[in-house]
Amino acid sequence: MIGRLNHIAIAVPDLEAAAGRYRDLLGGHVGDVHILPEHGVRVVFVDTGNTKVELLQALDDSSPIAAFMARNPGGGMHHICFEVSNIAASMEQLLAGGARVLGDGPKIGAHGRPVVFLHPKDFDGTLIELEEVEPELTPA
Amino acid sequence: MIGRLNHIAIAVPDLEAAAGRYRDLLGGHVGDVHILPEHGVRVVFVDTGNTKVELLQALDDSSPIAAFMARNPGGGMHHICFEVSNIAASMEQLLAGGARVLGDGPKIGAHGRPVVFLHPKDFDGTLIELEEVEPELTPA
Repeated sequence: MIGRLNHIAIAVPDLEAAAGRYRDLLGGHVGDVHILPEHGVRVVFVDTGNTKVELLQALDDSSPIAAFMARNPGGGMHHICFEVSNIAASMEQLLAGGARVLGDGPKIGAHGRPVVFLHPKDFDGTLIELEEVEPELTPA
Repeated sequence: MIGRLNHIAIAVPDLEAAAGRYRDLLGGHVGDVHILPEHGVRVVFVDTGNTKVELLQALDDSSPIAAFMARNPGGGMHHICFEVSNIAASMEQLLAGGARVLGDGPKIGAHGRPVVFLHPKDFDGTLIELEEVEPELTPA
């Protein structure tokens, strides 16, 4: 079911400072700041060539990552995202196997694609996001 | 400086159970158990095609991840590892920029290559490993 690791998300208290460290100290390929009001976050992507690090900062106290930041004021690794080809089939298989999906099922995620989050207690304390990706165009 | 994300490491309380969930529930490409006594861990790699998830279990209470497990008995995301081409040059650049390297400098890591770990307080609560990789053979 799971395909590529799409990204690892790190929640940070100061997005510009974190992006500066990834650019200047680590020499990473750091993108621009994007504001995603419907997700309650500002994000910067660091492109590592094979995958991405997503730096996230809460927009305000109603952000989905606000509770995480209250527990981890200095920031921390927040979730990992795997690509799947069919999110409905993945959900069905996970629920049949006894895993818990957070919320009411797939929503449109930060990349405009359907996503679900799995309960971290079912996966060794790790919050896992599944994102449905467009089928790859296979060269003829 | 940083290149590909080599792996994300997740510390788990029960390696076989965690590997089983990645294989059976998530349908991942899960490898065999490797015991690394010199690193105090047993590991299983999940190959995602573009990178790897490294599941880690402490061998005993003297393991480098024992303190993490005491704080996070259910497990959790432990570190991320970026590839670099020259670890001595990377360390010099990081130290000059004010970042802290853990321990006395590069050691031979779990993959038989030189590694260093950076202080998580310098990178938003995220423990970062740098691993020196062999230079790629460029096709003529």
